[in-house]
Amino acid sequence: MIRIARLEVDSTQLDLYRTLLKEEIAASIKLEPGVLTLHAVAEKGKPHRITVFEIYADEVAYRSHLETPHFKKYKTGTQNMVRSLDLKEVEPILLGRKKKM
Amino acid sequence: MIRIARLEVDSTQLDLYRTLLKEEIAASIKLEPGVLTLHAVAEKGKPHRITVFEIYADEVAYRSHLETPHFKKYKTGTQNMVRSLDLKEVEPILLGRKKKM
Repeated sequence: MIRIARLEVDSTQLDLYRTLLKEEIAASIKLEPGVLTLHAVAEKGKPHRITVFEIYADEVAYRSHLETPHFKKYKTGTQNMVRSLDLKEVEPILLGRKKKM
Repeated sequence: MIRIARLEVDSTQLDLYRTLLKEEIAASIKLEPGVLTLHAVAEKGKPHRITVFEIYADEVAYRSHLETPHFKKYKTGTQNMVRSLDLKEVEPILLGRKKKM
């Protein structure tokens, strides 16, 4: 199960937002077997425009992720920083990557 | 170096487009040491809306990729299928993923 989240974040709170996002991603990858990939990036020259490419093992893993303490901390902590959120479910065509990076 | 390509493809040619894209990704990952990730996905319910999340080792690897026969074949073969292309360079915040998937 794959989602792409596109966010616009309040520029005046961007440093704190990035810290909270990084904490959330690190905890999810470490603690949740069903969270496979969380790639967070910022548009070059427009750092408040953020995209997160998210791969979960399945729908159950995604639902479970939403209930974790680290996700809830992120969601609550950043709710006044996020100006817009566009969340799209997508389907794989081909997920190519090097086995060793 | 990371890019996000967002494309809209002619729906009547979508099957062939997907075949050419998959060939190109498979060849790039196999043959090019500097092509680390090419994740191609289609929007659920809108399969002509395609996103490719691309990670290259560096700028040189990206430039080299554009000159390969497999990329040129893809680019030439799909030029009449792609209705729009939005290509954005982005910078990593955190690229989290499971080591084994």
